[in-house]
Amino acid sequence: MKLYTYSKKSDDTDKMNHNFLKSLIEPADTKIFMLIMDGLGGLPKESGGKTELETAATPHLDALAEQSALGLSSPAGAGIAVGSGPGHLALFGFDPFEYEIGRGALEALGVDFDLEPNDVAARGNFCTVDANGILTDRRAGRLPTEDSAKLCELLSTIQIEGVRFFVMPVKEHRFAFVIRGTDLGDYLSDTDPQKVGVAPDRVKALDEKSKETAKLVNEFIDKARLLLADKSTANMIMLRGFASLPRMPQFADIYGLKAAAIAVNGMYRGVSRLVGMEVLPVDGITIADEFTTLEKYWQDYDFFYLHIKKTDTYGESGDFDAKVKVIEEVDSFIPRVMALNPDVVIVGGDHSSPAVLKSHSWHPVPTLLYSKFVRADGVREFGERACGRGSLGVFSAQEIMPLALANAGRLAKYNA
Amino acid sequence: MKLYTYSKKSDDTDKMNHNFLKSLIEPADTKIFMLIMDGLGGLPKESGGKTELETAATPHLDALAEQSALGLSSPAGAGIAVGSGPGHLALFGFDPFEYEIGRGALEALGVDFDLEPNDVAARGNFCTVDANGILTDRRAGRLPTEDSAKLCELLSTIQIEGVRFFVMPVKEHRFAFVIRGTDLGDYLSDTDPQKVGVAPDRVKALDEKSKETAKLVNEFIDKARLLLADKSTANMIMLRGFASLPRMPQFADIYGLKAAAIAVNGMYRGVSRLVGMEVLPVDGITIADEFTTLEKYWQDYDFFYLHIKKTDTYGESGDFDAKVKVIEEVDSFIPRVMALNPDVVIVGGDHSSPAVLKSHSWHPVPTLLYSKFVRADGVREFGERACGRGSLGVFSAQEIMPLALANAGRLAKYNA
Repeated sequence: MKLYTYSKKSDDTDKMNHNFLKSLIEPADTKIFMLIMDGLGGLPKESGGKTELETAATPHLDALAEQSALGLSSPAGAGIAVGSGPGHLALFGFDPFEYEIGRGALEALGVDFDLEPNDVAARGNFCTVDANGILTDRRAGRLPTEDSAKLCELLSTIQIEGVRFFVMPVKEHRFAFVIRGTDLGDYLSDTDPQKVGVAPDRVKALDEKSKETAKLVNEFIDKARLLLADKSTANMIMLRGFASLPRMPQFADIYGLKAAAIAVNGMYRGVSRLVGMEVLPVDGITIADEFTTLEKYWQDYDFFYLHIKKTDTYGESGDFDAKVKVIEEVDSFIPRVMALNPDVVIVGGDHSSPAVLKSHSWHPVPTLLYSKFVRADGVREFGERACGRGSLGVFSAQEIMPLALANAGRLAKYNA
Repeated sequence: MKLYTYSKKSDDTDKMNHNFLKSLIEPADTKIFMLIMDGLGGLPKESGGKTELETAATPHLDALAEQSALGLSSPAGAGIAVGSGPGHLALFGFDPFEYEIGRGALEALGVDFDLEPNDVAARGNFCTVDANGILTDRRAGRLPTEDSAKLCELLSTIQIEGVRFFVMPVKEHRFAFVIRGTDLGDYLSDTDPQKVGVAPDRVKALDEKSKETAKLVNEFIDKARLLLADKSTANMIMLRGFASLPRMPQFADIYGLKAAAIAVNGMYRGVSRLVGMEVLPVDGITIADEFTTLEKYWQDYDFFYLHIKKTDTYGESGDFDAKVKVIEEVDSFIPRVMALNPDVVIVGGDHSSPAVLKSHSWHPVPTLLYSKFVRADGVREFGERACGRGSLGVFSAQEIMPLALANAGRLAKYNA
C-alpha cells in the first residue's frame, strides 16, 4: 500500500522495524503454520484460461479460503522476479534488499548444501590455461556436467589442516565451493579476470579478518591446479562471489517464536536456519513425509514453515499438468493440518513459476491467511483471480509475518 | 504495497512529505468533512456472518457509498493495532511513528483532560512506603478507583506559585498528573525504581530546560507525601513517562485549511488541537449535539473533523448490538450533512474495535471517500467486505488527507 522502493536502504529502517515489532511482542499459547508451495503462482496456457492452481481440484484449500483473507503477495515489488532466497526472506518478514544472500552462498544452497553460519562459499568455474598459466577459455568449453562432476570429486580430496573443503557440481563448467573452518573471513576478491590472455588472479583479502582465509583458498587453488594439470577437459579453476551467510535477526528474538522448518532441499533448510528456525529431520523425501513430520513435532514449536519444492520444479520445466498434480497432492493433506487445530494458517509461495514461462516470474503469489480473527472474504476458491479480488489486495510478502503474529494474539497495541 | 516502515525514521521523510504537499496547495472555496467513528471496523460474531457495520441498517451511508470510492484504511501497517492517538495522527496525514505522543500526555488525554501545548503530563501511581520512605508496594494494593479518586482530589489542592497542578484518577492505583506553567521542560526522569525495598527516586532533569520543572515536580511530590502521610490506602506517589504534546505541523500551514474539530472527549480534542484545528464548543454530549455544532459553524471553516466515541466504547465492551445501534444513529444524520453540500466527505475510523475481540484490533478500517470528482465504485453498501473490494484497496490512512485535498480542488499539479 506504499510504492515499493527497490534499492538497499541507507538507513537501518528494516532493523528498526524488527526492533519495533519486538517491542510489541507478547507471549501467547498459539501456533502458526506457514505452508509454502515454491513457485506457486502461475499463468493460463492461453489467455482467458485457468492457471495451474485454478486448474487443480483443491476442495480443501477452497473450503479453507472461504474462511480466510485472500491476496496476492509480492516478494520484492512490481515487476521483480526473485530467486528463492529473497523470496523466502520476504515471507519470513525481512527486506530482501537489506539482507542479500551473497552469490557464493546462494550457489551452495542451490545445490542443497547445508551451509553453516561460519562457512565461506564461492561460485567456481572450471577453465583452461596454457603452459604459462595464461587463460585460454574461461569456461573450459562448457564441459558436460558429468565431466565436471568427476573433477569436483577429485578436488574434494584436497586437504589442508584446520579447514574442510566441499566442491559440488552445478552445471557444465560451474561448481559450488565451500571452505569450512573457524574465524574465516569472506571479504575476498574474485580470481576471474573476466578476459582471456592473462593469468587468473590470486585471491586477495579485502579486510584483516579475511587474510588467513585468502591464504587457505590460494593454497587450495594451487593444489587444484596440480591435480587438474593433466586433465584434457579443464586444467584450472576460478572462484568468485565469496560469501558467508548474512547475519540475520532471529525468529525467537524478534518474533518471540520457537520456530521449526520442514524442507527437504538445502536451499530452504539454509534460509530457515539463517533466521533462527530449527530444521527438523524429515524421514523420507515425499510430501507425505513432510506432513508426517509436522504432526510429529506439532507440540514442540510455535511456528512451522513447511516447504514444497515440486511446484517450482515443474513450473521451471514447463510441465503444467505435473504442477497441477502436485498442488492437488498438497491439498489432500490440508485436513490433517486442520486436525491439529492451528491458530493461524498461511498458504502461499515464495514467487511465481508459471509453467508457460518455464521460469520464476514477477507475478504476485496467491496467498491465503486463515485464523479465527481474520476478516474472511467468503470466496470458496483459492486461485490467482480469487486472490486478486481478495481483501489483502496486492500486498508485500513482508506483511505476512506481522499479520500472522497479530492473528495469533502475539502483538500488543501500539501507543495505547 | 510496501511494508509500512513502522519505526521512527532517522531522516525527515514525513516532514518532507508535508513540505511537498504544502508546495502544491492552492486556495479553493471548498469544504471537506471527515466523519470518524472511533473503532469503526469490526468482525462477524461467527465466520461467514456480518460485522457490526454490515449488520447496521445504514440506508444513507449505503447511498453515499454508491457515489464514493471505497477502501480499507490502515493506520500503521499490517498487523499493528493502534491507540487512538496514532490512529488519529494517521487520519490527519501524519506518520504516527514520526510523531509519537508520550505516555504521560496520552494518559492525560485519555481521561478527557484538555491538555495544552505547554503542559507537562505524567503517569502517576499511588504506592505505599514504610516509616523510612522505603517502597513496600508499588501499587498500594491496587486500591479501588473510588479511593484513589478521593486521594486525587486531595492532591489537587496542592499549590505552588507560578504553576498549576491537575491530578485525575485513571483506574485503581493509576492517575494522570499535569503541571501547567510557562517554559516548562518535559525531559524528566521517572521516580518509579521498578522494585520495592528502596525509596522512590527523585525527579531528575535530563536537559537544561527541564531543571526548573524538576524542582517544581519534586516540591509537589514532597507536599503530596505530607498530605498522604496518614492515609491507610496509599501514602506516597510515583510519576513516570513525563511528556508534553509533540510539536506538530499545523493544518493551516501545510494544507492551507482553516480546520475545526467537533469532539466531546478530551483525547480527540487534544489531538485535533495538536495539529492546529480549532476545537468547537459542543452544546451537549450527544451525537445529535455534535451534528448540530457542525451545522452551526459550517460557514466558518474549510475542514471539519467530527468524532463519534461510542462505536469504540461498545466495541471495547464487547456489545455488538449497541455498536450496531450507534452506527445506525450516525447514519440518520447523513442527510443533514449532505444538505450542507460538502465538496468532500470522508467516513472512516481511527482503528477497528471488533466487539468479539473487546479491544482495538489491527484490521484495516472501512473508509468511504465522496466527492463529485471521485471515481465511484458504484457499490450501494458501506461495510468491511464492500470496502475490501473497493477501488482504494487496502491503503494507508495517511493517504486520506492528500486524496481529500485533491478532490477539494486544493492541490496543484506537480511539475507541470
